[in-house]
Amino acid sequence: MSEQAVTAQSEDFSRWYNEIVYRADLAAPSPVRGCVIIKPYGYEIWEGIKSGLDRRFKATGHQNAYFPLFIPESYIRREAQHVEGFSPELAVVTHAGGKELEEPLVVRPTSETVIGEAFSDWIQSYRDLPLLINQWSNVVRWELRTRPFLRTAEFLWQEGHTAHATHDEAEAETRQMLDIYADFASEDAAIPVIKGEKSRMERFAGAVRTYTIEAMMRDRRALQSGTSHNLGQNFAKAFDIRYLTEANTQDFCWTTSWGLSTRMVGAVVMTHGDDKGLRLPPKLAPFQLVIVPIYRRDAQRGAVLDTVERLRQAFESASLRVHVDDREGQSPGFKFNDWEMRGVPLRVEIGPKDVSNNNAVLARRDVPGREGKQFVSQDNVVAVAQELLGDIQRNLLDDARAFRDAHIHDASSYAELRAIVAEGEWARVYWDGTDDEELAVKDETGATIRCFPFEQPDAPGECVVSGRPAAKVALFAKAY
Amino acid sequence: MSEQAVTAQSEDFSRWYNEIVYRADLAAPSPVRGCVIIKPYGYEIWEGIKSGLDRRFKATGHQNAYFPLFIPESYIRREAQHVEGFSPELAVVTHAGGKELEEPLVVRPTSETVIGEAFSDWIQSYRDLPLLINQWSNVVRWELRTRPFLRTAEFLWQEGHTAHATHDEAEAETRQMLDIYADFASEDAAIPVIKGEKSRMERFAGAVRTYTIEAMMRDRRALQSGTSHNLGQNFAKAFDIRYLTEANTQDFCWTTSWGLSTRMVGAVVMTHGDDKGLRLPPKLAPFQLVIVPIYRRDAQRGAVLDTVERLRQAFESASLRVHVDDREGQSPGFKFNDWEMRGVPLRVEIGPKDVSNNNAVLARRDVPGREGKQFVSQDNVVAVAQELLGDIQRNLLDDARAFRDAHIHDASSYAELRAIVAEGEWARVYWDGTDDEELAVKDETGATIRCFPFEQPDAPGECVVSGRPAAKVALFAKAY
Repeated sequence: MSEQAVTAQSEDFSRWYNEIVYRADLAAPSPVRGCVIIKPYGYEIWEGIKSGLDRRFKATGHQNAYFPLFIPESYIRREAQHVEGFSPELAVVTHAGGKELEEPLVVRPTSETVIGEAFSDWIQSYRDLPLLINQWSNVVRWELRTRPFLRTAEFLWQEGHTAHATHDEAEAETRQMLDIYADFASEDAAIPVIKGEKSRMERFAGAVRTYTIEAMMRDRRALQSGTSHNLGQNFAKAFDIRYLTEANTQDFCWTTSWGLSTRMVGAVVMTHGDDKGLRLPPKLAPFQLVIVPIYRRDAQRGAVLDTVERLRQAFESASLRVHVDDREGQSPGFKFNDWEMRGVPLRVEIGPKDVSNNNAVLARRDVPGREGKQFVSQDNVVAVAQELLGDIQRNLLDDARAFRDAHIHDASSYAELRAIVAEGEWARVYWDGTDDEELAVKDETGATIRCFPFEQPDAPGECVVSGRPAAKVALFAKAY
Repeated sequence: MSEQAVTAQSEDFSRWYNEIVYRADLAAPSPVRGCVIIKPYGYEIWEGIKSGLDRRFKATGHQNAYFPLFIPESYIRREAQHVEGFSPELAVVTHAGGKELEEPLVVRPTSETVIGEAFSDWIQSYRDLPLLINQWSNVVRWELRTRPFLRTAEFLWQEGHTAHATHDEAEAETRQMLDIYADFASEDAAIPVIKGEKSRMERFAGAVRTYTIEAMMRDRRALQSGTSHNLGQNFAKAFDIRYLTEANTQDFCWTTSWGLSTRMVGAVVMTHGDDKGLRLPPKLAPFQLVIVPIYRRDAQRGAVLDTVERLRQAFESASLRVHVDDREGQSPGFKFNDWEMRGVPLRVEIGPKDVSNNNAVLARRDVPGREGKQFVSQDNVVAVAQELLGDIQRNLLDDARAFRDAHIHDASSYAELRAIVAEGEWARVYWDGTDDEELAVKDETGATIRCFPFEQPDAPGECVVSGRPAAKVALFAKAY
């Protein structure tokens, strides 16, 4: 699978990405336009993402439920901005059970509408609030240009939907879920993200405020990696989600929604990968260690494999995810390359000398060559491996943070912004432009406002385009 | 939610079922024809089913993957029996992204075809075999008569798909997965199932052999609860799934598929439920214990709630799933009924006297009245609860098995079969009938062959319909 070298990132990042995704066996092409098959190695990363998030959702009082895949077409139309945002991307079922349907059914692009309708049934009084629901599901958006994990016609995600009695509670929920995304990204995926608010232009269709976590990929493009929306009372009014207040009056609820998708798998690939392939953060790696047995003569085989099996059991007893590569007919060198390609954080080599010396060789994926290799007594190998996996997890995060920070620059004029973006970097600028001015920057430079980061300078400044006083800085970058 | 008594099972089982499903908050009606919303309480049962099965799948070497929701219409047509079986139930996307599609896309009713196509790409040689894949997903079958969990237009399930080098390996896999279903059903869901083979008439569309686990519901109807199919080389030939043998020749693979769905939630309801509501097996219950604080005067409240909170933490530390019902304005009696309705296995009552005596009252859901109640010292309450939960799990299984065995009868003539089925019971008869004879029995009695059980009498007999010598007995019953 990895006989041939991968295209270098510097040569063609996009080609590098596609090669890695397919050669590391994360995904396979599918016969359906714009869809991929998520293969076991890629799906296990997604299972890691799911369990990391699901644990956090449940710890904050959210419950999972499941809503129908199909949405009556009329529902989508009820919230004006929502229909405008999603109409061009809808897949529509017109026939079922051998007959034409009276009302076509849309395959959900997101579930605000059908969940809004359910909430209006379920919520009667303030005692039913807050209502904190999450759904793990597939969604469909008929995109023209697709790329595995980053943008596909069908993708997997979670969508949270909550209803609250007050604006402030809804706002606190929206922010809490963004914090959970950011915590997951940095702690589990080793991806440092910038939390911030989207501009009006980049808001979710129907939201009052959209918050985002933005990550920088190795080609310095931005990837929006999760979003959390304060929907105000827009959907509550469109779907009549009302409740009886403690004061015995009727009021509309305040709702939120928030989502993170299989796109996060692409973020892991593009944040950590290098010219040799994937580098997986230990917390999400399907295999945290791979053991490669090494022997030249058949006489050595038995003793080596015995030691390998003993170590495998020791790693497994310590709840480490370990794989033994005992493929016959492949050289150790081939196997080393293959597992480097697939990003396994730690390689354990066991040869005849290691057997007699009670040693093992540990090689870190994140530190190339001799520097990343060490001899360890088999008696300590589990403890050392655990420590190294912790180091690797931290190192990947530090590495990504240093890379990101080196490529964000302050600009105090539009000319500077243009120059920075032309170099492929991110520009941080004071911004108080109109929608049209924002669009003009995009047309001219290809960059969009990724967000107004929560972390802001102490003092206000002057908008780089309009020259008006600006309270906040925005980050401009080219994005996926 | 449970102010009014439920319809008695004996009065109208079907009405009882619908009331329980909605009043115990397992599901809610949806605006889409034939679909329900799975509410958190129902979804948590499904999460328990998923994790019980997923653990068993992974322990036997299966890996999860994800294939597209949409299948090109032409794929469905490639296996002749398959298209005949599924055509009437298909939902079809004809428009997407604002345009009519060149080839309509079917929403997957099952994924043999799209996975078959993928397998033909992925499998090159015997080294790639066996290929053991599972998918957790939604599927759509446009059924005319639907019921929550039992038969809905969209449902959630897992579908396993494997490819093997020989017929015998495929057959062993098919049987292994049926064993896993049966083990899960009895050990986790406390549902005793009968393993057996389907008749030719009842086979999966495209299979060589279909195995099934059949369970008896409390109305004595049969519920097919999981199926495992040996597909022979039918799909391998339709999708050109070939491999290079060790002898360097090309051969078609032997494939299997097997599935279990959210129908299992319905099986839990209808196997264990009684006139008071659900009875959940502790291993699948979202809450294994509910603590109800009891006090009359405000002065008692603080001490009771302190004790309740201390016990809650003790149960949680022991990894028990515990819920405190501290709703204000609802009487203890209301709460008792409510949690009986929702089937929580064990209720813990804490009143002012229990606080001063260092006691707790434990009440079993499966043993009504005083007999199921006991006083326990708070010092032992966790250990006693753990033991009782084990008892309840076993008792539900024993109870269901005794019920089932009491309602299966041997019949040695067609007249006897007819009489047994007319009473709503199951008939076990020697069978060597033709498809037409099987159909005639169904038309006349409403009963179908549920399976030829693996457990067979020692001697052959005489077919109750044709009078021909018959090697095997079959179970006839009315079914969902």
